[in-house]
Amino acid sequence: MRVDVNCDSGESFGAWRLGQDEALLAHMTSASVACGFHAGDPSVMRRTVRLARHHGVAVGAHPGLPDLVGFGRRAMEITPEEAYDLVVYQVGALAAVAHTEAVPLRHVKPHGALYNMAARQPALADAIARAVRDVDARLTLFGLAGSCLTAAGRAHGLHTVDEVFPERGYAADGALLPRSHPEATIHDPTVAADRAVRMVRDGCVRSADGTEVALVAGTLCIHGDAPNAVAIAQAIRAALDANGITVAAPESAP
Amino acid sequence: MRVDVNCDSGESFGAWRLGQDEALLAHMTSASVACGFHAGDPSVMRRTVRLARHHGVAVGAHPGLPDLVGFGRRAMEITPEEAYDLVVYQVGALAAVAHTEAVPLRHVKPHGALYNMAARQPALADAIARAVRDVDARLTLFGLAGSCLTAAGRAHGLHTVDEVFPERGYAADGALLPRSHPEATIHDPTVAADRAVRMVRDGCVRSADGTEVALVAGTLCIHGDAPNAVAIAQAIRAALDANGITVAAPESAP
Amino acid sequence: MRVDVNCDSGESFGAWRLGQDEALLAHMTSASVACGFHAGDPSVMRRTVRLARHHGVAVGAHPGLPDLVGFGRRAMEITPEEAYDLVVYQVGALAAVAHTEAVPLRHVKPHGALYNMAARQPALADAIARAVRDVDARLTLFGLAGSCLTAAGRAHGLHTVDEVFPERGYAADGALLPRSHPEATIHDPTVAADRAVRMVRDGCVRSADGTEVALVAGTLCIHGDAPNAVAIAQAIRAALDANGITVAAPESAP
Amino acid sequence: MRVDVNCDSGESFGAWRLGQDEALLAHMTSASVACGFHAGDPSVMRRTVRLARHHGVAVGAHPGLPDLVGFGRRAMEITPEEAYDLVVYQVGALAAVAHTEAVPLRHVKPHGALYNMAARQPALADAIARAVRDVDARLTLFGLAGSCLTAAGRAHGLHTVDEVFPERGYAADGALLPRSHPEATIHDPTVAADRAVRMVRDGCVRSADGTEVALVAGTLCIHGDAPNAVAIAQAIRAALDANGITVAAPESAP
Repeated sequence: MRVDVNCDSGESFGAWRLGQDEALLAHMTSASVACGFHAGDPSVMRRTVRLARHHGVAVGAHPGLPDLVGFGRRAMEITPEEAYDLVVYQVGALAAVAHTEAVPLRHVKPHGALYNMAARQPALADAIARAVRDVDARLTLFGLAGSCLTAAGRAHGLHTVDEVFPERGYAADGALLPRSHPEATIHDPTVAADRAVRMVRDGCVRSADGTEVALVAGTLCIHGDAPNAVAIAQAIRAALDANGITVAAPESAP
Repeated sequence: MRVDVNCDSGESFGAWRLGQDEALLAHMTSASVACGFHAGDPSVMRRTVRLARHHGVAVGAHPGLPDLVGFGRRAMEITPEEAYDLVVYQVGALAAVAHTEAVPLRHVKPHGALYNMAARQPALADAIARAVRDVDARLTLFGLAGSCLTAAGRAHGLHTVDEVFPERGYAADGALLPRSHPEATIHDPTVAADRAVRMVRDGCVRSADGTEVALVAGTLCIHGDAPNAVAIAQAIRAALDANGITVAAPESAP
Repeated sequence: MRVDVNCDSGESFGAWRLGQDEALLAHMTSASVACGFHAGDPSVMRRTVRLARHHGVAVGAHPGLPDLVGFGRRAMEITPEEAYDLVVYQVGALAAVAHTEAVPLRHVKPHGALYNMAARQPALADAIARAVRDVDARLTLFGLAGSCLTAAGRAHGLHTVDEVFPERGYAADGALLPRSHPEATIHDPTVAADRAVRMVRDGCVRSADGTEVALVAGTLCIHGDAPNAVAIAQAIRAALDANGITVAAPESAP
Repeated sequence: MRVDVNCDSGESFGAWRLGQDEALLAHMTSASVACGFHAGDPSVMRRTVRLARHHGVAVGAHPGLPDLVGFGRRAMEITPEEAYDLVVYQVGALAAVAHTEAVPLRHVKPHGALYNMAARQPALADAIARAVRDVDARLTLFGLAGSCLTAAGRAHGLHTVDEVFPERGYAADGALLPRSHPEATIHDPTVAADRAVRMVRDGCVRSADGTEVALVAGTLCIHGDAPNAVAIAQAIRAALDANGITVAAPESAP
């Protein structure tokens, strides 16, 4: 058994600091790096790529909607063409930053509302998958486990990885609970670690209403915005180790 | 004798149209495409690359300062590190767009205030040249003829091209007259064409105060914001032809 | 019988020009001026207020979503609190510009997607109406005729004006056809003028599927982005005159 | 003897938090609130105005350059007209927010590079002073003690307040040391408190090269970005009290 562990990273912007990249990346195998539209200016992107390289963490692009003040978390009605174009732009920008730091770009994972929209809207998912393929067909596409996005990636011949969220609450249909839901976030590292192990080993998670949701866990996402994100990451890594689960970045495409 | 003819292009943004790319690119051999910071959103960039490809025009990146409302024309005190990072970001973004359109990226030319600052500030010029080299050492760097920027490009082993402006007034020191100067812009196509020929054939231009300024003309820039830009471009192309000057994009680096 | 005629104005931004304010405002009685979030920088706002003053046109604020590249036309999931805050901010900014030009601010009309969302979402409409009332209870609120927005304005004690669109196609439920619909826009000035008269005199408009939709026409909106916007405006003004309909800005609140 | 104590506040933006407004405003008599161009979105502005009201702190506008990624700290070549327009816009926006919270707007203090440019460039200072006067002639203008800005304010009939920085190093000419200077910032609360008292009581400060600089201290600025900003504020307030100096917001214009 094997799984990747990734976190959203590079979410600072100018004078503003956000997240705990310095502490958290040490516990990750992949980093999803913001690309300037919802967070992450060019200098933050460089610092984040360097930090990921320092920790031996695989680097991926985390493109978002053009909404700094909303942090890319507000759904916007964009066309598939707009989605294609903004993914190409942002992935290309980060690819160049990574190249200048001698770091290969390994994956793409849409951010926030773009991620959620792509999970449910086939046309948007298709556009994003084509954008990734057209920039570099060797890139791995991360998407919500069982969603439109990973399906679109496979349809376009991309290597895809199903993402699961051990510290986020699930609905019975496999969607993440909205952040406004009281059980949207799991704060207890032990609970998160148990969920992570169940997700990887057993392929399921208990939803907020008690039903078991089947899923494939290719990568576990840890959010850096929880105050105890490092404790959660450590607990999850320890639990994975204790259960004999290998933690490693997804293999590169051949 | 040989020269390139380029214009700033892709300077629309969202609902706003600017320039005359459709009419002007037919007369160019290179297009310098805005990359999103001063003009040019991801969708405009794609349309512009397609248009350049349609006309067989070589595509380059035209990165600018992060100043949409000022169109990148207002000097800003940025550090060399910030310059490096914003050039890498923008060139990478356009490179990805071009790649998805099966168009090679051929050159980089800073825009507006960044161009003018890089012409005079060695540290900024050095940072920009390193950014271009680090993204792709085969890219050609366009800079003001005789400026810090082309010198920095050569120092970092880049192929550089000296840019001249047949429709812009020159100071005696080879700098462009500021746009506020009454002779900043030449409106008469015949005059612009004569100046273009003199620049390429004789290696000089008459400055606003009457002195002859020596320069090397590797590429002629035609601004698309003049109402008669197409007439100027046609007059220049005709005059170059009449004088036996080959018009072609700079050769790619080996 | 009496009606106002207004157009969206001040939709340029920085170096980019949009609309035909110079020609169109001469035919209007109210101008809805963009406030910087979807279009209109502070300098454009000043020029537009001056132009409206020159033509004796009443000035109103036209606040939009924070989406320059999408021109405020893409629906975004914002909270009522966010809507309240961005309306207060933008109305306040334009009020200050108008004050420094000795021009009273007379109305507020949300722009684009914010307008459409406010027409249908009661909570958003309520937040916008409260924002307008809290900034200045004497401001008139323009909203889609028969929509949530004008209802919310009345509920909060505001003077409201029902807006109709003689050059836009209507659905049977009184909503505007989406811009992607083939009959979304009416190009023929004569047809637009006939519709304008019917709207004001008869209180109805024929929808795309042939049903008559009842509406109240307090203000007619002319879009400046049609190439023949001035011809449409002239035809409408002439038809209103010929039918004895007074054209004037809404009366100020006492 | 009497002095005001103010801090830059409302410098968060969207998901990003900056500063220590909650802890720091309790020790202030005036708050200079960011207005959206360099920091502070409309919702942050509202929260900050509410917090200032809660602490009985006078509210002023802190307009900055349009440079989010540079936090308004990078000098930009803007024209006096642009400065006038962006000050009117931002002050108007905050005035509306304050009005909806039933809080009077009391002062205007330019931020960062705009503040420093206005301290030295008479044309820019004049434009900013006119903007403040034209929005509301009863507003007090805060500017660097002895600078062009306060002189321009007085020339336009504004009540002005000379600002001094007890925790910032001074050059012999009364300018603040650039942030890159090793003595740019004073970290020791005791030293900052001593300087504050000397500034108010004795009208002077010792510059980095040892000379005494004469100045008038109408308001003391405490920066919220120092980790020990609250300790510095407390030390300064205690020292002012111990020396019988009244701490109060500037009196309103009649």
